[in-house]
Amino acid sequence: MKVKLASSYGFCFGVKRAIKIAESYENSSTMGPLIHNQNEINRLKNDYNVGLYNELGDVKENDTVIIRTHGIPKNDLKELKQKDAKVINATCPFVTTPQQIVKKMSQEQYSILIFGDEEHPEVKGVKSYATDDVHVVQQLSDLNTIHFKYDKIATVAQTTKKKEIYLDIVNHLILKNKEVRVFNTICDATFENQDAARELSKEVDIMIVIGGKNSSNTKQLHSICLENCANSYLIENKNELDNNWFTNHEICGITAGASTPDWIIQEVVDEIQKI
Amino acid sequence: MKVKLASSYGFCFGVKRAIKIAESYENSSTMGPLIHNQNEINRLKNDYNVGLYNELGDVKENDTVIIRTHGIPKNDLKELKQKDAKVINATCPFVTTPQQIVKKMSQEQYSILIFGDEEHPEVKGVKSYATDDVHVVQQLSDLNTIHFKYDKIATVAQTTKKKEIYLDIVNHLILKNKEVRVFNTICDATFENQDAARELSKEVDIMIVIGGKNSSNTKQLHSICLENCANSYLIENKNELDNNWFTNHEICGITAGASTPDWIIQEVVDEIQKI
Repeated sequence: MKVKLASSYGFCFGVKRAIKIAESYENSSTMGPLIHNQNEINRLKNDYNVGLYNELGDVKENDTVIIRTHGIPKNDLKELKQKDAKVINATCPFVTTPQQIVKKMSQEQYSILIFGDEEHPEVKGVKSYATDDVHVVQQLSDLNTIHFKYDKIATVAQTTKKKEIYLDIVNHLILKNKEVRVFNTICDATFENQDAARELSKEVDIMIVIGGKNSSNTKQLHSICLENCANSYLIENKNELDNNWFTNHEICGITAGASTPDWIIQEVVDEIQKI
Repeated sequence: MKVKLASSYGFCFGVKRAIKIAESYENSSTMGPLIHNQNEINRLKNDYNVGLYNELGDVKENDTVIIRTHGIPKNDLKELKQKDAKVINATCPFVTTPQQIVKKMSQEQYSILIFGDEEHPEVKGVKSYATDDVHVVQQLSDLNTIHFKYDKIATVAQTTKKKEIYLDIVNHLILKNKEVRVFNTICDATFENQDAARELSKEVDIMIVIGGKNSSNTKQLHSICLENCANSYLIENKNELDNNWFTNHEICGITAGASTPDWIIQEVVDEIQKI
């Protein structure tokens, strides 16, 4: 069976980059879980002895500590650097950007609005770079209780948030303030995987979508593929493949959810190529 | 008959201010029509000998020249100042603001987008302050043909434009660019007159709306008043008042369209108070 991979699938750029960094520092530890994927964290532990610290206090002198993709709060980073630990920064560049924007806009006396989940490590990190008035909102109605210090507002968004809600929020601010400086920090990775799956599913005889059956972005990919290719199947790993699906077909397209490690995808590809 | 004026009516702040300035410079001339109201321009000519220049070339040494509310292009202002004429600036401060924003944002290497009518004197003036990439759009679809030099866009709007369309345009830009710096330069004057008319029409027995019968903003005021007060009448001047309207009523509310001079309003007020 011929296999064709979607032009974009699986882990995003920032996650892939962080894994490569971790693989190149054997016996290091990450500060907080490197990425939101337990399978992959286990693999890094088993294959590269990459450990995990959950508390700054646990870090010892001469440790090599990798900063997670979501970044960490500014003061935690400062403390880490003072510990004589070797600090390797695997913060996604798309997360470093809003951190630096918030820092600069604070210095220029803008009130800062972050659209995101206050409890998410990425947002905690981004927020920590504000040196003045800063607020976090999850939805439009959260604005009702906010009083901004300045009439100049700078806004950033958590990288994985929905653009439509971000626009609703900034529109409200534009109507009420002299200046709203809108930074589009939402990452296109999720949409890129969806667009690529849509395209590929039009070209192939059968589509295999690899990812967690409870993962909302994987289910979304599956439903997009079904629109164009009735022979679309969602599997978690190679063990779920059924040879009968492939009878009388020539080309199999493959995509994967944003939490699916490359090695799981590779195992599936290898298996299908044998059919 | 008791008379109560709306808390906001008639000329906006910038127009009232320009008229006061013109009245205080007898025998001066304005560069272009001071405001968009021929009645008032005639009155300034008759009562204060305030003339009108349409061409820079007509200005003579020692002339006192008043800059119109909409402002003039930067180079025209420069030329005027070099002519040894006394230049009095009656540009509305709400128009000076976008001029200065465009100047500053150009210097900071933002592409500039002006939402407005390219042929309107205000927009011509605002646009002239750009020293780099600048574009004018009237509607969302105009964006299709625009190529911005930078991925940082600063936007301003003509003061009298509709906010809804401005938001549509900036939303489109936010989705496509790293940073959109949105300056809300739309003036609330029109909406303030409408809100004030709405409130007043709920309190009074009869409402008189003074303004041109072809003026869209005056008709809008009349229709708002009719929602709350069935005895609402639109008149152009005191001669159209009908005593029968006021029979058995006690309090008369008054509002006026944005092009209605104060003296026409005053004549109506004086007439009604006699009833």
